[in-house]
Amino acid sequence: MSANAHLSGPAFAHIPPWVLPKLRPMAIEKIQAVFDWVENECIPREHIMEAQLEGNKWARPPVMLELRAKAKEKGLFNLFLPHHFKESPGLTHLEYACCAEILGRCYWASETVNSHAPESGNIELLAKFCNDKQKEKWLRPLMEGTASSAYSMTEPDVAASDATNVGIRITKDGDEYVINGRKIYGNCMWNKGLAFYIMMGCSDPENPNPWERHSTVIVPADTPGFTQVRNLNVLGYSWAPEGHGEYTLENVRIPAENVILGPGKGFAIAQGRLGPGRIHHCLRLLGQCERAIELAIMRCNDARFKPRGKLIGEFDSNIERVAQMRLELDAMRQITYNATETLDFYAHDDKMLKSAGKKSIAQAKILVPATVEKIINECMQLWGGQGVTNEHSPMPKLWAYARFVRLADGPDAAHRHQVGRDEMKKAGEITERHKKYNALAASFAEQYGEKIITMPEDSL
Amino acid sequence: MSANAHLSGPAFAHIPPWVLPKLRPMAIEKIQAVFDWVENECIPREHIMEAQLEGNKWARPPVMLELRAKAKEKGLFNLFLPHHFKESPGLTHLEYACCAEILGRCYWASETVNSHAPESGNIELLAKFCNDKQKEKWLRPLMEGTASSAYSMTEPDVAASDATNVGIRITKDGDEYVINGRKIYGNCMWNKGLAFYIMMGCSDPENPNPWERHSTVIVPADTPGFTQVRNLNVLGYSWAPEGHGEYTLENVRIPAENVILGPGKGFAIAQGRLGPGRIHHCLRLLGQCERAIELAIMRCNDARFKPRGKLIGEFDSNIERVAQMRLELDAMRQITYNATETLDFYAHDDKMLKSAGKKSIAQAKILVPATVEKIINECMQLWGGQGVTNEHSPMPKLWAYARFVRLADGPDAAHRHQVGRDEMKKAGEITERHKKYNALAASFAEQYGEKIITMPEDSL
Amino acid sequence: MSANAHLSGPAFAHIPPWVLPKLRPMAIEKIQAVFDWVENECIPREHIMEAQLEGNKWARPPVMLELRAKAKEKGLFNLFLPHHFKESPGLTHLEYACCAEILGRCYWASETVNSHAPESGNIELLAKFCNDKQKEKWLRPLMEGTASSAYSMTEPDVAASDATNVGIRITKDGDEYVINGRKIYGNCMWNKGLAFYIMMGCSDPENPNPWERHSTVIVPADTPGFTQVRNLNVLGYSWAPEGHGEYTLENVRIPAENVILGPGKGFAIAQGRLGPGRIHHCLRLLGQCERAIELAIMRCNDARFKPRGKLIGEFDSNIERVAQMRLELDAMRQITYNATETLDFYAHDDKMLKSAGKKSIAQAKILVPATVEKIINECMQLWGGQGVTNEHSPMPKLWAYARFVRLADGPDAAHRHQVGRDEMKKAGEITERHKKYNALAASFAEQYGEKIITMPEDSL
Amino acid sequence: MSANAHLSGPAFAHIPPWVLPKLRPMAIEKIQAVFDWVENECIPREHIMEAQLEGNKWARPPVMLELRAKAKEKGLFNLFLPHHFKESPGLTHLEYACCAEILGRCYWASETVNSHAPESGNIELLAKFCNDKQKEKWLRPLMEGTASSAYSMTEPDVAASDATNVGIRITKDGDEYVINGRKIYGNCMWNKGLAFYIMMGCSDPENPNPWERHSTVIVPADTPGFTQVRNLNVLGYSWAPEGHGEYTLENVRIPAENVILGPGKGFAIAQGRLGPGRIHHCLRLLGQCERAIELAIMRCNDARFKPRGKLIGEFDSNIERVAQMRLELDAMRQITYNATETLDFYAHDDKMLKSAGKKSIAQAKILVPATVEKIINECMQLWGGQGVTNEHSPMPKLWAYARFVRLADGPDAAHRHQVGRDEMKKAGEITERHKKYNALAASFAEQYGEKIITMPEDSL
Repeated sequence: MSANAHLSGPAFAHIPPWVLPKLRPMAIEKIQAVFDWVENECIPREHIMEAQLEGNKWARPPVMLELRAKAKEKGLFNLFLPHHFKESPGLTHLEYACCAEILGRCYWASETVNSHAPESGNIELLAKFCNDKQKEKWLRPLMEGTASSAYSMTEPDVAASDATNVGIRITKDGDEYVINGRKIYGNCMWNKGLAFYIMMGCSDPENPNPWERHSTVIVPADTPGFTQVRNLNVLGYSWAPEGHGEYTLENVRIPAENVILGPGKGFAIAQGRLGPGRIHHCLRLLGQCERAIELAIMRCNDARFKPRGKLIGEFDSNIERVAQMRLELDAMRQITYNATETLDFYAHDDKMLKSAGKKSIAQAKILVPATVEKIINECMQLWGGQGVTNEHSPMPKLWAYARFVRLADGPDAAHRHQVGRDEMKKAGEITERHKKYNALAASFAEQYGEKIITMPEDSL
Repeated sequence: MSANAHLSGPAFAHIPPWVLPKLRPMAIEKIQAVFDWVENECIPREHIMEAQLEGNKWARPPVMLELRAKAKEKGLFNLFLPHHFKESPGLTHLEYACCAEILGRCYWASETVNSHAPESGNIELLAKFCNDKQKEKWLRPLMEGTASSAYSMTEPDVAASDATNVGIRITKDGDEYVINGRKIYGNCMWNKGLAFYIMMGCSDPENPNPWERHSTVIVPADTPGFTQVRNLNVLGYSWAPEGHGEYTLENVRIPAENVILGPGKGFAIAQGRLGPGRIHHCLRLLGQCERAIELAIMRCNDARFKPRGKLIGEFDSNIERVAQMRLELDAMRQITYNATETLDFYAHDDKMLKSAGKKSIAQAKILVPATVEKIINECMQLWGGQGVTNEHSPMPKLWAYARFVRLADGPDAAHRHQVGRDEMKKAGEITERHKKYNALAASFAEQYGEKIITMPEDSL
Repeated sequence: MSANAHLSGPAFAHIPPWVLPKLRPMAIEKIQAVFDWVENECIPREHIMEAQLEGNKWARPPVMLELRAKAKEKGLFNLFLPHHFKESPGLTHLEYACCAEILGRCYWASETVNSHAPESGNIELLAKFCNDKQKEKWLRPLMEGTASSAYSMTEPDVAASDATNVGIRITKDGDEYVINGRKIYGNCMWNKGLAFYIMMGCSDPENPNPWERHSTVIVPADTPGFTQVRNLNVLGYSWAPEGHGEYTLENVRIPAENVILGPGKGFAIAQGRLGPGRIHHCLRLLGQCERAIELAIMRCNDARFKPRGKLIGEFDSNIERVAQMRLELDAMRQITYNATETLDFYAHDDKMLKSAGKKSIAQAKILVPATVEKIINECMQLWGGQGVTNEHSPMPKLWAYARFVRLADGPDAAHRHQVGRDEMKKAGEITERHKKYNALAASFAEQYGEKIITMPEDSL
Repeated sequence: MSANAHLSGPAFAHIPPWVLPKLRPMAIEKIQAVFDWVENECIPREHIMEAQLEGNKWARPPVMLELRAKAKEKGLFNLFLPHHFKESPGLTHLEYACCAEILGRCYWASETVNSHAPESGNIELLAKFCNDKQKEKWLRPLMEGTASSAYSMTEPDVAASDATNVGIRITKDGDEYVINGRKIYGNCMWNKGLAFYIMMGCSDPENPNPWERHSTVIVPADTPGFTQVRNLNVLGYSWAPEGHGEYTLENVRIPAENVILGPGKGFAIAQGRLGPGRIHHCLRLLGQCERAIELAIMRCNDARFKPRGKLIGEFDSNIERVAQMRLELDAMRQITYNATETLDFYAHDDKMLKSAGKKSIAQAKILVPATVEKIINECMQLWGGQGVTNEHSPMPKLWAYARFVRLADGPDAAHRHQVGRDEMKKAGEITERHKKYNALAASFAEQYGEKIITMPEDSL
C-alpha cells in the first residue's frame, strides 16, 4: 500500500490520493491541528464573533485577539509562507493547501492563524522583495501578528485590471516621495490595527517601457494627507473590521526607504504577489463550499422538512443536484491542488514557474470562484426561504464572498484573455505539425494507391 | 401601418409589436406617466431615500411619504389591480405589465404608486375574497395607502413550499380564533405603518382532505401575543423598512370575522393570490435588469476605462456578452408579457385560466429570476471592482433581489416539478398518437411494398 | 371571451393566446389542413421515405413526388410566401409561423408543400427582386414545383460569414458573365431535379464601397464548367437527396440577363433573402423539438422501462428535466413568433423593418438552434442507448439538423456581434440620461439637505 | 528540481506536474513510442483508412491489419492491462493514462495497439475472472490480436442502465445453457474477425437476491440461433467495421464451461469490468478534444479567414472561448488522471477501491463526455460551415463519439444518482458534527456572556 494511504478521518477526507504520499509527518500534524482548531475553536465561535462585532465594528473583536494569541502559541501562525523562505514554518505550497482549504470552512479562521488575505500575500511580498532593514520594520510585526497591512492597487478612475493604467502619482522630492491621487479597495483605515498600505503607483509616467513606470511603496496608515473617505460596502456587507476603503491621497509624503525593490519595480512586485494570493483565495473557497454542501446535505435529510411527503434528499432531482455539486467541487480541488503542486514542482525553474505556474494559477482563479458561487447558490436554494437569511446559516455571506473573489485580483475575463492569447501562440507549432500530417498523408496515398481528399485545409 | 405602430420614445422602446395595438389610449397615457414618474421623480431620489433610511430604518422615510402623496394625486395608485375588479383604475394585466416593468427600474418605485409586493397581492386577494364589511375595514385603507399589510405563510419548521405542511394552529374558541406557532418572512412589524398580516394556518388538522385543513385569517399587527423576535437579514440586507420578520404567536386571539372566505378556504385563497404576485415580481425584474444593462453599456463606453488600450465595449467578447444579455432579457420579456396576456385572454374561462394561466405564470416564475440574476451578475462583472460595491451602483442590491425572487412564492424546483408532472400527464394522448402513426405506417408499408423497421417501440 | 379563444385541438395547442385572435378563418383552415397533412400523410411515411432513398439517393423518391402532387392539389403549396406578394396564397408571416412549426414535426414535410429551405428563401428572393421576364423563367417553375433551386454563398477559402469576403469572380465579357472560383454548400447538383443556383460573387473588386462589389446571378446547373466535386457529408449524414455540394467553376458563362436586380446589388439581395429564411429554419426547429419532447415523454411513461423499479418519468429529476425543456421551448416559440409578427407589423415601415425586424430575427437565429440542440440532446438521453440510434427514432437526425442550423446562414457569433454592436450604440443616449439623473439628484440633495455620495461615475 | 521535471516535448506537454515523477523510465519510453506511433503512423493514414473502409465496410481494412502487426512487433500491444496482471506489459493505470490520451488523438489508434473498447475491458475481465482453461481459449487470442470480442448487456425492452433489469434468459439444460431473448449494442457480428460475445443474462430469475440472478457467459459469434438483425447506426454513422448490432437469440446453446466465474456471478463481473473501461473512454476523449482544440487554434490563425478584417483568433471573444476550452479540458484531465491514480493507489485495498475508486471513476464518467462534447462543438463552430462537414476535419465524428460516450456504460444520470445517494449517506455524520458545533457554541455563549441566535436549526 502506498505511503500515507492509511491517513483517514475528516481532516484528510477530501485530500486526493496523489497528494497523500507527499505529506510529510510535520505537515500531517499541522493539517490535523488546523482541522481541530477550526472545528473546535472557530466554527463554534461564529455567533460570538458576530455578536462582538455588532457593538464595535472597526476593531478586531476580543474573541479574535484571544484566538490569535492562542493560535500563535500553538504554532499555527503563518503556515502559508512556503518553506523556501527562511522565515517560513516549513510547509510546501501543497501541504499548506490542505490547511488552507480547512481554514476556509470558517470565514475568519485564516485570520486567527495569520494566514488571511491580504496579510498572507503582503507577508510573502515583503519576504521576497524587501531588504533586511525593511523586513525588520515592516515584515516582522506582520509575521508576529502585532500589526496588520493592506494592499492598494485598484483606482476609481481607470481600468486597473490592466495594471499599466494605475494612475496615482508618486513623485520624488528630495529624500521623499510625494503621492497624489485616489484609490479604492484595500482594507479599511478605520480598523485601528492597520499599520500600513503596500501601494502601487506611477512614478515614471514618461518611461518608454510601460512595465517600468510604476513603483510599489509602503505608506503608513497615519501619514498626513492620506484620508479614507468612506468604507465601501460590497454586495451588501461592510466586511468589517477589514472593510474596503475609498481613499484620497493629497501630498502624502513617505521616505525614499519605503520604496520596495527600487523605483520602477512595481510590476515585478505585483506579479510576484498575486500568484499565491489568488491560490489562497481559491483554496479557502473550497473549504467554504464544503461547508455549504454539508449544510445542504443536512437539510436534505432533516426530518422536519417534507415537501410532498418526502425528505428533500429523497427527491431524485436533489440527489442528482448534490451529486453534481460534489463532482464539480472535487474537480475544482484537483485543479487548485495541482496549481500549488506546480509551484512546488517548478520552485527552482523560473521559466516553468512563469509559464506552467501562471497558467495553473489562472486556471484556478478563473474556474473556482464561479463554480463555488454556483454551488453555494444551489445549496441556499435547497434550504428554501431560510437559505437566504443571514441568521440561519453562513451561506449567504460565503456566496457573496465567492462572487467577490471572481473579481478580486482581476476579473476572470482578463485572466481568460491572457490564457487565450497564450493558446493562440501555439498556432505556429500546430500548423507545422499539420503540414507534416498532410505531407505524410500524401506519401501514404501514393504508396497505398488511394485517392484521398485534398481540401483547402491541406494546402497549408 | 398597424395601430400604435407610431408609439415611440423610451417609455415604449421595449414593448413588443404584438403588445402595441392592445394598448388603449388610457393605458398609453398611464405608461408614459409612469415612465416620467420613475425617470424624473424616483431614480434621481435614490440617494436621498438611502440617506433618510440610514437615520431611521423602520419607518417610511419622509421622501417616500411625499412621493406617495404626489403619485396618488396624479392617479398612479393601484394600477396593478386589473380592470375586472370594480375597485380597479382600469388597466388590463398586459397594460399594467408595461407599467410594472418601468417601475422595476427603481427598487422602490412600485411602493410610491402603491403597487409593491406584498401590498399588490394582498389588495387583489382582499378584493377577490372579502365580503363588503371586510373590504371596508381592511381593503380600503390599503388601496388608499393609509395602511400597509404583510402576507405570512412560510414557517421555520416545515417545508412550506408544499403548503399542506403549513403548521401554525388556528383554533376556534367561541367567537374567536386562537393562533399559536411560529412564522418567518412577512414584512417587519417594526415598521410602524404595518397594520395587519394576512396569515395562512391550519384550522382543521384532522380533515381527511388535506386541501381543506387550512384557513386564511387577518391578524392585526398589534394583537397581544403576536411578537416579532427579530428582523431577518436576507442576502446581506435588512430590506428596511419593509424587512422580513421572524415571529412567535402565543395565544393570539382574533375575532371570527377576520377569517377570509370561511374556514378551510386557505388553499383556494393562496392559489388565487400567488399568480399575479409572481408575475409582478417578474415584471419588475425586467425593468431592474434593463437598468443594469444600461449601466453596463455606459461603462463599456466610458472613456476613462481602457484595459489594454481599448474601451471595455470595444472588446469583441464584451460585445457578444452584451448581445447575449439583450437577447435573453428580451426573451424573458416575451414570456412574461405573454403570461399577463394569458390572464387577460382567459379572464372569463376559469378552466383555461387554471391550466394555461398557471403554466404561463410558472414559466415566468421559473425562468425570469434565474436569468435576471445571471445577467445582472455579468453587468457587475463588466464594472470590475466597482461593480460589486453598493456605493457605486444599485446593481448589487438588484442582483440580491433577483436571487431572492428565485425563492419568493416558492423555490423554482417546486414550480418546475408541477410543470413537469403536467407534461407527464400528456403521455397517454401522445402514445395514442404514436400508435396511430405505427398503424398507418404498417398499412403504407404494405401499400408501397417496402419493408420498414419494426422496433420494440412500434409494439406500443 | 376573446376572438378565437375557442380554437382547440392539437393543431392549435401550442399557439400563444396573443396569436390566436390574429388568425383569420382562412389561416385557421390552413393550419388545420397542414396539421392533418403532417400527422396523417407525412409522419407515417417516414420509414417509406427512408427505404426509397436507400435505393436511389440522388433523386426525389416516388413517395415525395406523390405527396407533392397531392399537396399542391390540396392548396398547400408555397404557404410561406407572405400575403404582400401578388404570387402569395395569402398568409401573414405569423399565420405561416403556425404552419411552419407543424411542418417541422417531420424532417421533410416542408418539401411536400414546397416550403422547404432553400426553396422558400429563393422563391421569396426571386419574387422580390426579379423582373417579370426573370420571374416567368425562374420563379414560376419553382412555385409550381416543377424545378428546384439552390443558394450558393459559402466558399472554402474565405470567411463568408462576413459576405464582403465572398471571392468568386464574376467578370463581364460582352453580353455574358464569366464565373471562376470554388463554392461549398448549396444543394447537390447530383439531384436531377435541381435546375439552377442563385449565386453570390464578386463582380467589381475595385469598387471603393465594399457593399457594392458583389452581384447575385442565376447559374443553371447544367452550365458547362460548373462541376460538383463531391457531396459534403454534414455531421454524419449525406442529407440526400438535397445534399450539400462542393463545386468548382471554371469559365462558367451565363447571359447578362441572369444578373438579378443589376450588377453590384449582391448585398441588398443577400440581406433581403436571409431574414425570412432564418425564421423558417427556427420555426421548423420548434416543431422538431416538440416531436422530440413527445418521444421523451412517451419513453418516460413506457411501462417496459423501469430503472430502480420506477418509470423513467417517475424520477423527480426527469420530471424537472422535462419541465425545463417545456419552458425553454415555449420561450423560444415566443421569440420566434414575435419575430414573424414584427415582420408583419412593420411590413410598410422599412426603417423599423431593418432595426426591429433584423433584431427580432437575430434573436431567434441565435437562441433557437442552440436551445433546440440542447433539448433534443436531453430527449435522446432519456431514451438511454436507443436514444442515439437512427433506427429507433428520428431524434439523432433532428439533433444534427438543429446543430447545423446554428451555422446555417451564418454562425451565431457573427449575429451576436451585430446585436452587440447595436446595443453599444445606445451608450450616448444612456449616458445622457444618467447625466440628467445626476443633475436632478444634485438638486434634490440640496433641496432635502442631504449629503449624497458623489462618485467618479457622477462626474459624467 | 523534482524527478522527471526535465521531461519535455509534445508527448509530455499535457502531463500535470504531479504525474511526472511517477512515470518510470519504461513508461516514459512507452509514452514517447505511442506518441510517435500516433503522430507518424496513424493520423497521416486517417484518409487511407476511410478510403479502404468505403469499399469493404465489415472487415478490418488492410491498413489496420498492417498497423496492428507493426505495433505488436514494436511492443505496443495491450498496454492498458495494469501491471498487477501477470499477462500485463507492466504499466500502472496512471502510466497508461498518458498513453491512452495520446491514442485518443486518432479515432482508431487504440485499435492498432489492441487497447480499444470493448477489447480492453473484455481482456481485463477475462484476465480477472477466468480460469486457466478459459484464459487459454478466449483470453490468449484476444491478447495476441488474432480474434476480437464484443460485450453485450443492453436490451431493447428493458432499462439496462439498472442491470437487475437485464432480461435475456440463460437456462441450464444438462451440460449446456440455452439462451433466448433480444440484445442491442455489442459489436457487429458482420465483422468477420469477431469471435465471441461476453454476454450478461438472467439465469436464476427466482433468486430472492436480485444481485445473484444473473450470469455472464461467452457466446461464440457463430453459434446457431444467434442472429444479427441489423447494424444500428448511431448518431449518423455505422461505426463500421465494429458497428453496433441488434440481435435475436433463439435457443442458442453454449457449453457450461462458457460460464465465467460460475452461475449467479454476473454482477460481480459487470462491476469489475466497467470501471477501467469507463476511464479508458474518458482518457481517449481527452486526446480527441486536444486534437479538436488544435484544429480550432489552427483555424483561428489561418490567414485566409478574416471576417471583419481580423483573424478569427484576433477576436477577443474567440480568445476567451479558446481559453475556456483549455481550462475546462485541463480540469477534465486532472480528474481523469486522478481516477487512474486512485486505482493504483488503492490497488490492494478493496474497500477503498470500491468507494474512492468508484467515485473517482464516476466523476470522470459524468463530467468528461459532456465537457468534451461541448468543447468539440465549439471548435466546430469556430470553423464555420466547414466545421460540420465530415470531409474537412474529423471533428464531427469526434463530437458524435463524445456524445455517444455520455451514454456508453450507462447514462450519466444513473451514475450521478449513485454519487448523490452516497453523498446523502453522510447526513448522519454531518448532523452529529453540527450538533457538536451547537453544543460548543452554547457553552461559549455562556462563557462570553453573549446572547447568540438560537434558530430552529440549532435544535437538532
